Amino acid sequence: MSEVKLFGTWFSPFVRRVEMALKLKGVEYEYIEEDLRNKSPLLLQHNPIHKKVPVLVHNGKPIAESSVILEYIDEVWKGPSILPNDPFDRAMARFWVKFIDDKCGPAAWRVCWSAGEEREKAKEEAIEGLKFLEEEIEGKKFFGGDSIGVVDIVANFFAHWFLILQELAGLEILSEEKFPNLWKWVNEYCNDNFLKENLPDKDKLTASFKRAFATGSLY
Amino acid sequence: MSEVKLFGTWFSPFVRRVEMALKLKGVEYEYIEEDLRNKSPLLLQHNPIHKKVPVLVHNGKPIAESSVILEYIDEVWKGPSILPNDPFDRAMARFWVKFIDDKCGPAAWRVCWSAGEEREKAKEEAIEGLKFLEEEIEGKKFFGGDSIGVVDIVANFFAHWFLILQELAGLEILSEEKFPNLWKWVNEYCNDNFLKENLPDKDKLTASFKRAFATGSLY
Repeated sequence: MSEVKLFGTWFSPFVRRVEMALKLKGVEYEYIEEDLRNKSPLLLQHNPIHKKVPVLVHNGKPIAESSVILEYIDEVWKGPSILPNDPFDRAMARFWVKFIDDKCGPAAWRVCWSAGEEREKAKEEAIEGLKFLEEEIEGKKFFGGDSIGVVDIVANFFAHWFLILQELAGLEILSEEKFPNLWKWVNEYCNDNFLKENLPDKDKLTASFKRAFATGSLY
Repeated sequence: MSEVKLFGTWFSPFVRRVEMALKLKGVEYEYIEEDLRNKSPLLLQHNPIHKKVPVLVHNGKPIAESSVILEYIDEVWKGPSILPNDPFDRAMARFWVKFIDDKCGPAAWRVCWSAGEEREKAKEEAIEGLKFLEEEIEGKKFFGGDSIGVVDIVANFFAHWFLILQELAGLEILSEEKFPNLWKWVNEYCNDNFLKENLPDKDKLTASFKRAFATGSLY
């Protein structure tokens, strides 16, 4: 019988991506909560290079990096497709995943945790990135079309974490006025029964971020 | 009939990745050399987000980002597989591609173009990254096994560009003594008829890098 374990931590959007994909496919799995201040020997053994969550262990074989895990889940398990079927559409989906992971996501994260000139630079980058996402989502319910796909899964940070963070940081980058299409997408996201169940509790996340703003450490 | 165009520039390892993949598959294509000091309107139209080469245009549809293009080529055209067939092996290949693109490659690039503390930091990162690659290639002819695969294609920078760069920068990071397995791989790479034909001319590249070291600009 197939044995699936997921090493994660509750507040990580990267871990939630993997959980969403597993749940979409109806895969049963054991979830192992890691304490990132005191990582387990098993986590370090499974991901010696990055030493990070998420790690998916399938029949004893560990896979790291959420975007890599999402492709693996889509290839191994039947159920709703996570990536589109058409090769060009798959390429576009992979392009946006990479864009969010390499550019837009890190900039949006940095803008909330920096100050002064660094914040201004990150803000510019984040806004530029969001403008591209705003164009891409125009006229669509989800990035995946009528149903969610890999880009929606990967963009989860913007539907939940970032909204909490920008408010705590006294910023208003992603708003209905500035990004009406993305805002509509955020609402679809947070009102979708499946999606909203895979977002961490808002109050708990807010409390964690508040503590992190005060102490400088997320853990 | 299928129409394939590749927008590139001769010295880019990212563009060479795509050419290698197209040639491996036996795909006929038109190559358009871009002057990166004066990018063509077509390039900007095809890749408005990153404004970079390579861009592959297949039947009028543009795809950017070399790692995304490699997956597309593997899915669309028959011929030797670029990614492994087994889902777990595919995940491992994607993991290494991401590792080279996100960590090891940028650190190795930075170490050659920086000084002082920044160089020391990049050096440490590059060496750490190369150690993981050294372990991964141990006992194998190529990262792909007996024949080249996506990781070999993506690691092209280390087989050619980086060796030239480190010498010009007066560094000896990748050497036979320090990384014997990787060094063996470099030799396999540079002695393979197919692979070596897809590397830019060493003298021309050396001259370009020398000019770049002197002027601070690659173009």
